[in-house]
Amino acid sequence: MLSSENTGVPARTVERLVLYRRLLNGLTEQGVEFIHSHEIAEKANNSAAQVRRDLMAIGYTGNPARGYAVNDLVRSINGLFEQKRDQKAALVGIGKLGRAILGYFALRQARPRIVAAFDSDPAKGQGEFAGCPCYPVDALTSVIARDGITVGILTVPADFAQPVTDLMLVAGVRGILNFAPTPLKTPAWAVVDNVDIATKLEKVAFFC
Amino acid sequence: MLSSENTGVPARTVERLVLYRRLLNGLTEQGVEFIHSHEIAEKANNSAAQVRRDLMAIGYTGNPARGYAVNDLVRSINGLFEQKRDQKAALVGIGKLGRAILGYFALRQARPRIVAAFDSDPAKGQGEFAGCPCYPVDALTSVIARDGITVGILTVPADFAQPVTDLMLVAGVRGILNFAPTPLKTPAWAVVDNVDIATKLEKVAFFC
Repeated sequence: MLSSENTGVPARTVERLVLYRRLLNGLTEQGVEFIHSHEIAEKANNSAAQVRRDLMAIGYTGNPARGYAVNDLVRSINGLFEQKRDQKAALVGIGKLGRAILGYFALRQARPRIVAAFDSDPAKGQGEFAGCPCYPVDALTSVIARDGITVGILTVPADFAQPVTDLMLVAGVRGILNFAPTPLKTPAWAVVDNVDIATKLEKVAFFC
Repeated sequence: MLSSENTGVPARTVERLVLYRRLLNGLTEQGVEFIHSHEIAEKANNSAAQVRRDLMAIGYTGNPARGYAVNDLVRSINGLFEQKRDQKAALVGIGKLGRAILGYFALRQARPRIVAAFDSDPAKGQGEFAGCPCYPVDALTSVIARDGITVGILTVPADFAQPVTDLMLVAGVRGILNFAPTPLKTPAWAVVDNVDIATKLEKVAFFC
């Protein structure tokens, strides 16, 4: 579903690079300077060959004797994301799940930054939550356009998912992380990733 | 990652069947009696051939003229899950995300039922939240064994994910939905599905 046209790096590789960076940051804090691909693989539940292929994709090769320099490697992975570092996200649906995500991201100072949240309930769509300004859903298109928001996070009930998606895309959003338990219809240029928690839980239960 | 040995139905098929059932339940409420594979495919963002293959996997073939009988089809999909209907789940980590998930599932009366929640903070690991009994994490293995819980939901910080996983598996859990931003090491018989929200959001942002 994800296109890699604009970067040349496949979506699954990007996902693993984000994971490696998180693991490597943990090592930096512990003062580790060098690491071998099989050690990264061990932490990432992965194979050493896969790790080497992923790092090759960003033009990075380790020293066979000493392994990869941890700090350098983190810098290389960061470089890949550098051009995207000022991206902004909006969350729609300030219910239980929406609030949990706002709180979680504020705490971790995660990127992209969530700079606006919206709700159809006027009591929720005002003031701030976890440091994020909240707006009524009527303001959706104008705030997204004004703030140059390109990423949307959907935490609305299933019935509202498609109309909110259509509005977001019109206003300038190009990628959506969809928590609503329904598939979205979007043009081919839009990036969508679905996180349907209830379906995932049923699936795990089914196989165990 | 998911094994299908015990059912013969592949993991991705199960995931799609859960989605079809949700879409079909919506149609039942609207009084729709028959539906063609291409109409299901349209709603599921899928192909008609894929829908027919998935339904064949549970031994279901439609009538080419009228399509599938919606009620019958829902019953057939339910049949697949019937043997699992009394499965119970436990959630570990009653923080923001954990509480959002407890609230969400209680509201939807989702299955598997979450019958216990645990936290290392004694203030959180007591009483009830969204109708679910909360316990201190010391009681983890005894409650899981006593209640016959087989599914675990991990909403703890990364550092606690592996030790909590080890305890859950010892106590009788066989499948885990992991929200902690770290991979888990588990024996081959355990089923794990990862939902790393921060990584997913970074990935969507990267491609848009």
